[in-house]
Amino acid sequence: MRAVIITIGDELLIGQVLNSNAAWLGEQLNLIGIDVVRTAVVGDDLEEIRKVLADALADADIVITTGGLGPTHDDLTREALAESFGVDLRIDEGVFDAVRERFSSRGRRMPESNRRQAMVPEGFAILPNAAGTAPGLWHVDETGRMLIVLPGVPHEMKGLFTTQVQPLVLGRSDLRVIEHRTLRTAGIGESTLQEKIGDLDDVLPEAVRLAFLPGTAGVRLRLTAFGETRDDVHQALEETERALRERIAQYIYSSSDESLEEVVGRMLLDRDLTIAVAESCTGGHVVHQITNVSGSSAYLIGGVVAYSNQVKTQMLGVDEHVLASNGAVSRQVAEQMAAGVRRRLQADIGVSTTGIAGPTGGSPDKPVGTVWIGYSDKQGTESKLLRLAHERLLNKELTTTLLLEYVRRNLLSGRPNR
Amino acid sequence: MRAVIITIGDELLIGQVLNSNAAWLGEQLNLIGIDVVRTAVVGDDLEEIRKVLADALADADIVITTGGLGPTHDDLTREALAESFGVDLRIDEGVFDAVRERFSSRGRRMPESNRRQAMVPEGFAILPNAAGTAPGLWHVDETGRMLIVLPGVPHEMKGLFTTQVQPLVLGRSDLRVIEHRTLRTAGIGESTLQEKIGDLDDVLPEAVRLAFLPGTAGVRLRLTAFGETRDDVHQALEETERALRERIAQYIYSSSDESLEEVVGRMLLDRDLTIAVAESCTGGHVVHQITNVSGSSAYLIGGVVAYSNQVKTQMLGVDEHVLASNGAVSRQVAEQMAAGVRRRLQADIGVSTTGIAGPTGGSPDKPVGTVWIGYSDKQGTESKLLRLAHERLLNKELTTTLLLEYVRRNLLSGRPNR
Repeated sequence: MRAVIITIGDELLIGQVLNSNAAWLGEQLNLIGIDVVRTAVVGDDLEEIRKVLADALADADIVITTGGLGPTHDDLTREALAESFGVDLRIDEGVFDAVRERFSSRGRRMPESNRRQAMVPEGFAILPNAAGTAPGLWHVDETGRMLIVLPGVPHEMKGLFTTQVQPLVLGRSDLRVIEHRTLRTAGIGESTLQEKIGDLDDVLPEAVRLAFLPGTAGVRLRLTAFGETRDDVHQALEETERALRERIAQYIYSSSDESLEEVVGRMLLDRDLTIAVAESCTGGHVVHQITNVSGSSAYLIGGVVAYSNQVKTQMLGVDEHVLASNGAVSRQVAEQMAAGVRRRLQADIGVSTTGIAGPTGGSPDKPVGTVWIGYSDKQGTESKLLRLAHERLLNKELTTTLLLEYVRRNLLSGRPNR
Repeated sequence: MRAVIITIGDELLIGQVLNSNAAWLGEQLNLIGIDVVRTAVVGDDLEEIRKVLADALADADIVITTGGLGPTHDDLTREALAESFGVDLRIDEGVFDAVRERFSSRGRRMPESNRRQAMVPEGFAILPNAAGTAPGLWHVDETGRMLIVLPGVPHEMKGLFTTQVQPLVLGRSDLRVIEHRTLRTAGIGESTLQEKIGDLDDVLPEAVRLAFLPGTAGVRLRLTAFGETRDDVHQALEETERALRERIAQYIYSSSDESLEEVVGRMLLDRDLTIAVAESCTGGHVVHQITNVSGSSAYLIGGVVAYSNQVKTQMLGVDEHVLASNGAVSRQVAEQMAAGVRRRLQADIGVSTTGIAGPTGGSPDKPVGTVWIGYSDKQGTESKLLRLAHERLLNKELTTTLLLEYVRRNLLSGRPNR
C-alpha cells in the first residue's frame, strides 16, 4: 500500500513551524508497513490544496491530510474537498451539537465561526475528535482508495490517528492489531548491543520488528508487533522482551517510558536512600538532570559543582597533594570527590565526575573526552574511566547517563547493604 | 515570484529526521519576499523525483531541491535531472579535481564512489561547495525559470544558499542585497517590548523588517534589511539598531550571536571577577548553563545545589531560624544563599535561586512559579521576586535567564566597584 501525506498551513511553508506532523505520520505509517511515497506541504490556498489532493489521489492507496479544519476563513480544507469531489458541504447536526456542547460544557457560547467546523462534504464519514472541536473526515472510493482528513493540532491529530485511523488502515491490510514497546538501555553502544543480541532471527518472531534508536540517554530498542488479535501481539512482545532480556538484561533500565533519572530516583525512594553529587566536568548537568524529576527532593540532598581546585579541597575535602600529584582528572580525585560529597552532605551515596569536557584542555595522555566517574557508599568507594567525545555538551550528557547507570547497577547489585 | 521546495531522502519520509531544510529555506525565501507555494518531500526514488520535479517546474518561477547528491547508489538527484531534461550526465573535470583534492588534503584517497559527485547534467552550471564534496547545480531555461539543486547536509545547504543562491535569486528580483541582524533581549516580555518600542513605523525604515522571536533565553528581535547595495543595507541596519537602542537599550544584551551566558562570562573576564552560584529550585541548571561556555573555569569558582535545608545551613551558612520563620522560598533565604556562597567559595559575586519549580509544592501565598533570585558582592546583597510559569523545566530555564540578566545589569551599573 502506497501513502501520500499532505500537510496544510502557511506557517509550515515559511518555516515558522517545523513539520512534525508529517514526520510523525510518516513514522507511524512506516511502522505498520505502509510505503510513504511523498509528502506535500501547501499553504492555506484553495487552488493549491485542490491540486495536491488530485495529484495524491492519482497515485496513492491512502492519502492523509492534516490542517485547515479550524473555524476561520483561512481554513479551507473542507471547501477543497467539496470542490475536488464535486459535492456540496452540508451541516452535520451531530457534529454541530458536539461542537456546541464542547463550548457550553466550559460555560461558553459557541462563536458563530465555529459553525464552519460542522460542515461536512457529502459522502464523507466523521471521525469524532475527543480532544478538540474539528472532527476528522474520511472517504473511500469504489476502487478502495482511502482519503483521511485530520486536524493540524498535533495532539488532536495523533489521538485521532491512533484511536481511529490506524484501525481503519489496518482493517484494509492483512494486519489487524499493532503494538509498540520500547526497551531503554544505557552503558552500551549500538554495535556492541547488536553483537550481544546476536542473530536477530533467533530473537524476533515473524511479526515483530526491532529498531535501534541511539541517543545521549542510551540506545532505545523499539519493538513493533503486528497480529490478528491483541492477545497475539501482546504475547509476541512478551516473548521478544524475554528473549532480549536473556541476552542483555543488565543494560535495560526501563521497558516503559521512564527515563533513567526517574528509574534511579524510584529505586532510591524504594530503598529509602539519599544521594549527593560532586561535579567537575559536567558542571551541574548531573544534578540538573536529577532535579528534572518532580519529587527528587525526597532523595537528593544536594550537589557541589567544584570547578576550581579550591572548591574541591575546601568543600569536598579532596587532598591538595593528591590533586597536585595526580591532577584533577584522575581516579584518586574522582574517588575523593565522591566520598567527600557523601560525607559532607551526609548522604547514603556520593557520586562524582571529573574530566576534560572540551573543546580545549586536552593533552596527549588525557585527551578531550577523558572522564572519571566516582561512586561511594558505606561499603566503599570506586571509580570508572570513560573515553568520550570531542563536543562539550555531548560529553556532559553522556557522562550524566553513564553516571546514573553506574548508580543503577550498584543499587541492583544490592549496594549499599543495610 | 513563486517558489517550490523539494527535499529528497527516505529518512525524511519515514520521520527519522525532521525536515528542517525545508523550514529554513521557506523562511529565507519568505524573508526576501518570494512566495513559497508548496514543499514536496520524496524518497530516494528516481520516478518520484522526476514526477515532483515536473510538477514543480510546471508552475513555479524558482524550484529548489535539497538532497540526493551524495556518492552512493541511492543518491539519484543527478540522474533524475538528466532524465527530466533529456540530457546526458558527464564528468566535470573541475569538480572531479576539487573532490579528489578534498580527499588528498586530508591525506586520504578518494573512494571510487565519489566519482559520481563530479557528474553534471549537460546545461547545468556549478555552485562550488566550500564545505563538502557535493557541489550545487543550477539551470535557467529560456523563460527565466530557475532550478537550483543543493546538497542535503544542512550546513552545506545553508552555506551554498547564503553565499551563492541568494545573490542569484535576488539578481532576478527587484532587490539586490539582503542582510540580517539579531538583537537579543532578556528580562522583558514580548508585549512590553512592543509597547516600549512603540509605533514600528517610527523605528523601521521602509526596507527593514522586524520579527519578534520569544524563547526561554529572552526575546530575539530579528532585523532583515533589503537594498541596492551592501552599504545601503548596512546603513539601514545601523540606523534601525540605533533607533531601537534609544527605546530599549538596557534590555539588549547582544547584537551578535553571543548567548547571555557568553556575554556575562566575557564581562566577568574583562573585569577580572569571579562568580559562585547557590541553587535551590533551578537544581544545577544555572551552573550547567554557565559551564556550557568553553573557558568558563576562568571566572566560575563553582556552585552549590542546596536542595535540602541541611545543605543550605551547613554549606552556605543560611540561618536555621531564618529558614524556619520565613521558609526556604523567601527574600531572606535567597540573600543569605547568595552571600553565603560568595563568602564560602571566596568569589567576587555570589548569586542564588530559591523557589517552587512545580508542578507540585505550591500554596496559596507561594504558588508554583514563585521564585526569589539573589545577588551579592562586596557592596551588598539584594534580591528579586519572580512570578513564573507552571512547568518545571520552563521555570528552571526562565529563572536562569533572569538571574544571568540580573548579573549583567549589575555589572553594567559598575558593581562591584574595585
